[in-house]
Amino acid sequence: MKQKARVRIGLLGLGNVGGGVVEILGRHHKLIAQRSGVDLEIVRALVRDPRRERHPAAAKVEMTTRAEDIVGARDIDVVCELLGGVQPASALIARALQSGKPVVTANKAVLALHGPKLFRQAAGSGADLSFEGSVAGGLPIIRTLREGLAADRVTRLLGILNGTTNFVLGKMEHGHDYAAAVREAQALGFAEADPTLDVSGRDAADKLSILLLLAFGISVKPASIPTTGITALTPEILADADLLGYRVKLLAQGERHKAGVEASVQPAFVPLSHPLSTVSGAENAVAVVSDALGRTLYQGQGAGGLPTGSAVVADLIEAGRNLKAGIGARVPPMHKGLGLAASQSRAPYSLRLSVRDRPGVLAAVTRIFAARGLSLATVLQRERAGDPSSAVPILLVTHPAPDAAMQAARKQLEKLRALRGPVRVIRILQGDG
Amino acid sequence: MKQKARVRIGLLGLGNVGGGVVEILGRHHKLIAQRSGVDLEIVRALVRDPRRERHPAAAKVEMTTRAEDIVGARDIDVVCELLGGVQPASALIARALQSGKPVVTANKAVLALHGPKLFRQAAGSGADLSFEGSVAGGLPIIRTLREGLAADRVTRLLGILNGTTNFVLGKMEHGHDYAAAVREAQALGFAEADPTLDVSGRDAADKLSILLLLAFGISVKPASIPTTGITALTPEILADADLLGYRVKLLAQGERHKAGVEASVQPAFVPLSHPLSTVSGAENAVAVVSDALGRTLYQGQGAGGLPTGSAVVADLIEAGRNLKAGIGARVPPMHKGLGLAASQSRAPYSLRLSVRDRPGVLAAVTRIFAARGLSLATVLQRERAGDPSSAVPILLVTHPAPDAAMQAARKQLEKLRALRGPVRVIRILQGDG
Repeated sequence: MKQKARVRIGLLGLGNVGGGVVEILGRHHKLIAQRSGVDLEIVRALVRDPRRERHPAAAKVEMTTRAEDIVGARDIDVVCELLGGVQPASALIARALQSGKPVVTANKAVLALHGPKLFRQAAGSGADLSFEGSVAGGLPIIRTLREGLAADRVTRLLGILNGTTNFVLGKMEHGHDYAAAVREAQALGFAEADPTLDVSGRDAADKLSILLLLAFGISVKPASIPTTGITALTPEILADADLLGYRVKLLAQGERHKAGVEASVQPAFVPLSHPLSTVSGAENAVAVVSDALGRTLYQGQGAGGLPTGSAVVADLIEAGRNLKAGIGARVPPMHKGLGLAASQSRAPYSLRLSVRDRPGVLAAVTRIFAARGLSLATVLQRERAGDPSSAVPILLVTHPAPDAAMQAARKQLEKLRALRGPVRVIRILQGDG
Repeated sequence: MKQKARVRIGLLGLGNVGGGVVEILGRHHKLIAQRSGVDLEIVRALVRDPRRERHPAAAKVEMTTRAEDIVGARDIDVVCELLGGVQPASALIARALQSGKPVVTANKAVLALHGPKLFRQAAGSGADLSFEGSVAGGLPIIRTLREGLAADRVTRLLGILNGTTNFVLGKMEHGHDYAAAVREAQALGFAEADPTLDVSGRDAADKLSILLLLAFGISVKPASIPTTGITALTPEILADADLLGYRVKLLAQGERHKAGVEASVQPAFVPLSHPLSTVSGAENAVAVVSDALGRTLYQGQGAGGLPTGSAVVADLIEAGRNLKAGIGARVPPMHKGLGLAASQSRAPYSLRLSVRDRPGVLAAVTRIFAARGLSLATVLQRERAGDPSSAVPILLVTHPAPDAAMQAARKQLEKLRALRGPVRVIRILQGDG
């Protein structure tokens, strides 16, 4: 076999994931060289404060506070961006690509906001941009969409892309209320002090926009993806799901139609027979439906220094191999003229409402559905309280219906005078995807 | 972007998978060229009988009956072996590699029997050998073990690698007996006229040996992997599983110990909370536990012309890119001195036995367990029949125990004079793997 090719890496950032990368490269250096034929070496790292306490493996890396020592340095072959946040990360990635250095990044915010622009820069300079760690850290979903499915046409994509919300939902299944579940996630380090990005669904929308680019070739700003988080979920809704044979998951979805791609991030009822229902704790999973393969599913740890670090190292290996082989930028092909489409698919819905317990209310509710051609599969009025003036919950499940009809019915329900509290509508996942 | 590199492919075989490859390349030719930068072209195919009726897409391919027109032809860059069977496939793969042509194959039997030898030939001539389609067709498990996990150390591997048996077990869950379930699988084309390779577990053992090579770097003949098929399973055992909260799956397993790798193919009880329990119909799935990633899981269609064809095309794309880039053979690193180890792990077991219904039998049974330090978690004596001379079933579940102690207990149980019929012992999957 040939001499191993030496690949010199400059890190931008030396935090949690950076420490993971250094640790993995240190621990498996020989194995990686054997398996891949490239000898990966970390030359130096950009840090804000060289005196900060770090991962023991990371403490030995040469540090600099000048970005130019990485992105402009002659002794760096590949730039590995692990700063997080949009700036200066995005500008530094662009600078590195322009100077012909391949870039590996785990930065979902940069990809979601500036992905297409950076791919054009990569194409222009012939330097590759890799980002396996940006979505579902430990899962090879980016690699699979770029390579394994390169000869296939994706029709649908379903993901649990945010581990924090999945952890919180798991706790709520066991009766914790939302606030207590979030506090527990924070105590265990799964959630930030400010969990807004996670629980609002915005983190999942960022990641979904990256997957939409690869799966369907469309460039979508995360802010334009209809996004509902988990903040309005209650233990009662999770108990409804359990009663009906479902688990509640925050699903990121994309589905190809003629008119465009229907995309959303929203809580959904997932049948117990569907593999996504078994995704537990802080795990991530992605199901991809394509012409040739049917449904394939990828599941594992979505975040953390080692899983994400491992994805970054896999990218570094490939970047190193491609660099030494003279393979240039691979740019995801964009599907011109295709964009987001409004909801066109039909699904069953579950509804929970609370009404004053008096004669005729259920009839009024069901009339609203009938008037919109929505047929009901299940109507469950829970046991009435002792006091006739108090509210009683009603749980309804519809047969598959268009989203628009469902939203119209919801608006009518919200005008009911007997209504007490909000109307909770949750889509039920059906079919293979 | 650069001019697309033209890659000329010669097929060995033009059956079901070959037709899938031709169809996918025809349908997605432009997309593949765009995404990968290589222009894949099928030049000709080796067939036994050119006049045989074929897949419509395949009928247009130039055919030859001389293997040398493929493996020795100057106008062929990459050889794609889809003949099936060990010979002449294995000899033709070796011949192509020796002449410096990269080979893509979906042939599990060749890999399982001659893999290490062929890898040495590949290394010698610098031509790459790819085989994504050989295990779990539609899942990128080979690619993941070679690349995504290149920087990681696998500690455990669990797979449902045979779609036919998984389909049969699904039918048996719904009360079909074994023979009826096999007939249904045959009628639907999931099982061969002679289903022995599938139901004996030997097909799964072939595939497991390939995964063991990649995951642990050990070369294991499939025949030396302890293998139990599904032929002894009955609807009663599947009902036991259901009662206890499990599904029965034919699991192929590998687990790293200091002394070597414990490997087996056997039916197991899989908890409903485990993702492998949701693998339904003819699907395949593989769970990999590694140092950095923890558990990752891959699930999808394991066989069929399009899923396997899609895996083959992904390999052809990569072979084409590597060829044009001058990247040579990647040979899985072998772990010298590591081999198969006897069972060292502890697991709970379920046992079903049938005994004459008379006083003292249950005491005799439980004494056998106690004498070997095996403690029982569940003892369930089913309702007795009216006739006191008839047999009654007993269902037992142990706490985690070493396999050797369990097998010793089984031997003692088989000597019980009150025993009626065989003692069925099934391992229960536990933990994260």
